[in-house]
Amino acid sequence: MSSEKVIENEDKISIKRYFATNKIGDSDISLRFNPLSYFDSTMKRTSKTALLILNQTININIELFSKLWELTDLKVCADGGLNRLRNFDESFVPDYVIGDLDSAKQSNIDYYKSRGTQVILQDSQYCTDFQKSTCLINIHCNHAHILDEVAEFDTIDGLVKKEEELGSLNNDSSSHNQDIQILLLGGVGGRFDQTMATINQIWRYSVTRPQLQFVMINPEHLEFIILLKEGCNLIDYPKLDKDQELVFFGHETEKSRPGLRNVGLLPIMEPAVISTHGLKWDVLHWETDVKSKMSSSNLQVGNEGFIIETNKPLFLTLEL
Amino acid sequence: MSSEKVIENEDKISIKRYFATNKIGDSDISLRFNPLSYFDSTMKRTSKTALLILNQTININIELFSKLWELTDLKVCADGGLNRLRNFDESFVPDYVIGDLDSAKQSNIDYYKSRGTQVILQDSQYCTDFQKSTCLINIHCNHAHILDEVAEFDTIDGLVKKEEELGSLNNDSSSHNQDIQILLLGGVGGRFDQTMATINQIWRYSVTRPQLQFVMINPEHLEFIILLKEGCNLIDYPKLDKDQELVFFGHETEKSRPGLRNVGLLPIMEPAVISTHGLKWDVLHWETDVKSKMSSSNLQVGNEGFIIETNKPLFLTLEL
Repeated sequence: MSSEKVIENEDKISIKRYFATNKIGDSDISLRFNPLSYFDSTMKRTSKTALLILNQTININIELFSKLWELTDLKVCADGGLNRLRNFDESFVPDYVIGDLDSAKQSNIDYYKSRGTQVILQDSQYCTDFQKSTCLINIHCNHAHILDEVAEFDTIDGLVKKEEELGSLNNDSSSHNQDIQILLLGGVGGRFDQTMATINQIWRYSVTRPQLQFVMINPEHLEFIILLKEGCNLIDYPKLDKDQELVFFGHETEKSRPGLRNVGLLPIMEPAVISTHGLKWDVLHWETDVKSKMSSSNLQVGNEGFIIETNKPLFLTLEL
Repeated sequence: MSSEKVIENEDKISIKRYFATNKIGDSDISLRFNPLSYFDSTMKRTSKTALLILNQTININIELFSKLWELTDLKVCADGGLNRLRNFDESFVPDYVIGDLDSAKQSNIDYYKSRGTQVILQDSQYCTDFQKSTCLINIHCNHAHILDEVAEFDTIDGLVKKEEELGSLNNDSSSHNQDIQILLLGGVGGRFDQTMATINQIWRYSVTRPQLQFVMINPEHLEFIILLKEGCNLIDYPKLDKDQELVFFGHETEKSRPGLRNVGLLPIMEPAVISTHGLKWDVLHWETDVKSKMSSSNLQVGNEGFIIETNKPLFLTLEL
């Protein structure tokens, strides 16, 4: 019995009716993703946000970057990410730089240190700079009271050990770890094995630290990549006209198809059965698998956003 | 019973001894990959080669590009790839441009047509430009006798139908399809859903058209990506000093770690058990899976190259 279907929609549809017809309320939504909240200070934020800069050229528009910077609560550079930030614009001063510090130039460390950046050496070769940074962000947001001691931690792997000790790893519900959204600049694009390592790491964090939601920003093409959750995912992202884009991002974004942003649904880790509402080619009970068929190069046509229902987590790519 | 092992090697080891000790002969090798053969005209070539340019900015070094161009037997642009080629350097004239031609600019089509490029309209929306191009390359190399008719094919999907009719698709050993190496410029990097669509397509071709070997060239970081075969894979790629690099590529390549090229082993489609010889961190009977552990950011230390033994196909990334 296969009830798989593909429906081709008009370029402009409303998904509001779908909510009403299917009596979908807030409690039915596993994940609500609101991309504009990173660019608009008037929007209500429900979680803390951190901007994490990895060691990859920053080539996004300066207005866009400034907005991301302004609206994230915490800014962290992973080792050589510090060089990339200074090359981009040295007026942005991060809260932390962390890693074994074999990539960050000493002159850059000195420069930022004198401007207030906290420099944290963690020498362990059993953790990547990405892991060390995530660990720091988790501690910073969930255990602010120990931040004064950070400088005293063992410089090999004191931070990782502290995180374990604090029970921030879950699924220890008693620890009441708050949700944190981590915007990741770098980590996709560039070397393909590193891209896949990032994807792998984010998948693993979704199990060990479910309180963290990662939003990858692809520096090679302006898009978000996130891991959708099992259940109903709402991408709360209205279609924007040029004037609105200018207000939100400081510039008009370049889409693969004018006016319609590109959407990809990537079941990289395991096959999934998905239903969508608000895409150009909506699917119903559609079996998707990285080895056979995937919905790449789809387009958002839902005026208010779109919905992905899935029986397994899968990655979403979404153009700005 | 797990005999999994990881061995850390010196930065310079020989894999010749391994061949002798294990009595590995040519017939034991499933796949031999020789990257220098694309850059050195004195090397013996065993298969036809084609350069396929997809619709993505070409930002590789001109000397490198010229060598690739010179040493491939056939040059094809997939639709908008034609614009990218002209933007890069209009003196390179491809043999074909193919697709629904909604992306290639008319002025570019006219320009190349007047210089001898054959323009092939295939309008089908059920095939991607990548698929149409591959189909053309397969027909060109394996059925040269029908090339005069190409212009007469149905402009919707005549080419795809012809390929089916000619029995070029498989496993039909009676058809004696010759091996073709297709160097793919574009398709990885850029939009992440497109990257994954390329990976997916190459995986599927490995089953339906085993005579095709794809060599993806990442335009965002100078590296090759190929699909390794079940069995013993030999990457026949000596470590090069700066002078040799200059001779082969026309410039010195930029490696993640000076002198040692980066290697990634990516079991994206299914888990694998691998053993390697000639890497910084060699593994023995190592279970790898995109959901748990992968060998990314490994390094070549084998002076003459390295060996990957695997019980399942998996993707390899390899810096130039």
